[in-house]
Amino acid sequence: MNKIKLSAISKPIDNELEGFLKHFKIAIKSQVGLVDLVSSYILKQKGKKIRPLLVLLSAKAAGGVNERTFRGASLVELLHTATLVHDDVVDNAEKRRGFPSINAVWKNKIAVLMGDFLLARGLMISVEGKDYDFLENITRTVKRMSEGELLQIQKTRKLDIDEETYFRVISDKTASLFETCCAIGAMSASDSAEVHKAFITYGEKLGIAFQIKDDILDYDGTFQLFGKTIGTDIKDKKITLPLIYALDNATKDEVKMVKSNIGNSKNSNAIRDVIDFVHQKGGIAYAETVAKKYADEAEQALEILPASASKEALVSLLKYVISREK
Amino acid sequence: MNKIKLSAISKPIDNELEGFLKHFKIAIKSQVGLVDLVSSYILKQKGKKIRPLLVLLSAKAAGGVNERTFRGASLVELLHTATLVHDDVVDNAEKRRGFPSINAVWKNKIAVLMGDFLLARGLMISVEGKDYDFLENITRTVKRMSEGELLQIQKTRKLDIDEETYFRVISDKTASLFETCCAIGAMSASDSAEVHKAFITYGEKLGIAFQIKDDILDYDGTFQLFGKTIGTDIKDKKITLPLIYALDNATKDEVKMVKSNIGNSKNSNAIRDVIDFVHQKGGIAYAETVAKKYADEAEQALEILPASASKEALVSLLKYVISREK
Repeated sequence: MNKIKLSAISKPIDNELEGFLKHFKIAIKSQVGLVDLVSSYILKQKGKKIRPLLVLLSAKAAGGVNERTFRGASLVELLHTATLVHDDVVDNAEKRRGFPSINAVWKNKIAVLMGDFLLARGLMISVEGKDYDFLENITRTVKRMSEGELLQIQKTRKLDIDEETYFRVISDKTASLFETCCAIGAMSASDSAEVHKAFITYGEKLGIAFQIKDDILDYDGTFQLFGKTIGTDIKDKKITLPLIYALDNATKDEVKMVKSNIGNSKNSNAIRDVIDFVHQKGGIAYAETVAKKYADEAEQALEILPASASKEALVSLLKYVISREK
Repeated sequence: MNKIKLSAISKPIDNELEGFLKHFKIAIKSQVGLVDLVSSYILKQKGKKIRPLLVLLSAKAAGGVNERTFRGASLVELLHTATLVHDDVVDNAEKRRGFPSINAVWKNKIAVLMGDFLLARGLMISVEGKDYDFLENITRTVKRMSEGELLQIQKTRKLDIDEETYFRVISDKTASLFETCCAIGAMSASDSAEVHKAFITYGEKLGIAFQIKDDILDYDGTFQLFGKTIGTDIKDKKITLPLIYALDNATKDEVKMVKSNIGNSKNSNAIRDVIDFVHQKGGIAYAETVAKKYADEAEQALEILPASASKEALVSLLKYVISREK
């Protein structure tokens, strides 16, 4: 498979991305000097911008980008940025996108307040634009994201998670925001309930495929030169699809070994053994197959749309998501 | 002055407070066991509930409490609770309302996610109830609260804050939510723009008086047997009204002494000297006068309302706020 680059996928909406960026810059301005300083710092960090990309591509494939689309793209990017800023506080993370994190530069208090500011600005943009349909989506999504992560923590503590719970967790904590991005893009461009539904399905399946791939990458670092180290999830006692499959197909003694090793996760040999076990049991291959299945279903959901460069880009995005190496 | 108790102030709306509590309990339910567990823990802690009290009293004084009032009261209490939960993470606080804090019991990650969940639930209730006027108010308030605190931090670092900036900070970080509580109560009960305006003014002035009194209490612990220790703001390099006044009326040498002592705030004698200096310069008496002036203006704003037990309670609340001892 040829390598797909995000820059190629965003081609059909390169102009619109510029428009979004202008909108986003205005959204995070403030009359308070310190807020503006941190905002400028955030702007310097070029993230992948997958979420605004999704909003814009969905809108363009569903009819066309307009002012409401820009507001929606700013809303999701503001919410996502707020979440990252708060995550870094909780995880005591020192780096984000290659830069020192906001908590590392300005301490926790400022980071938490900046996250609140960004979230509030996102919501204000929707309120001012009377985008009540966006608000309904985004508030439900914030609830699902927090509940999904909390459910994962709850299950993780007991090392007790089955496939059904795994899919509930990743649907809530990750796929919900992808789904909302596509829904917002589609709602901004079309009034057809059928079109909305197609994008909701696409976004949900894309998000699930994205998270499964993320979880695979934690076990499969063969091609990883940069990016996160493998084994982090095991250290955090996160049981994800590759391991769930492997455990389902293991002997009692193997299950015992894995649980003991996970409990002993400061030992890097113990982690290595779990990773090897998952590979041997076919956990990676299985998870790859499942991710591919979700990507295929996402592609099918778009069938009702007329052909367009944006539609093609959304299909390429699926391939990008499940074939990326970091 | 006779001591005023909150329980006496809430008399006219005791039944409605029960109704609110039922509403609030439903709002923080979740199908995720861990979320429900933390929610029950929050419910066990009886806070002062000043914010829902304000919503309910304002509504009753403006025409009458209804379902929309309950939704508004739940919204502000959910937002306020979310803020407290996040604050405790940032401050590494171990106690809240006499109980171990959520971060102390369940760690930071769960506390941050619970805060997000509570905020999302508050916003969802407003979206579902189509209370778009509430949403407009509350999102602007979240922005003001974060900007106000960030402005205070910015100024604090340079020990450079004048009265004008002080009032901007406390108006944004504290008074904005009081103002929103009263606005939401009034909007739920009356369509009169004049009535709305009266409650907005009342809430803003009440909030400013409340924060000034809070700042006074940090210097004036004579009657404090329990509650927070005095001198905390000085340790945090927060320059508040009593000190601003004292510095405005000090010699150059005195200013030098204070700035040096604040920079040396691990020394409790240094703190004690600043406190004594503020008392001698009349900083406390001045701040008391200003708080009283705001309370009087708040009372005047209510003059357009017909006499009622709820109106009287709102006036008593002003007296409570500026005469409380903790």
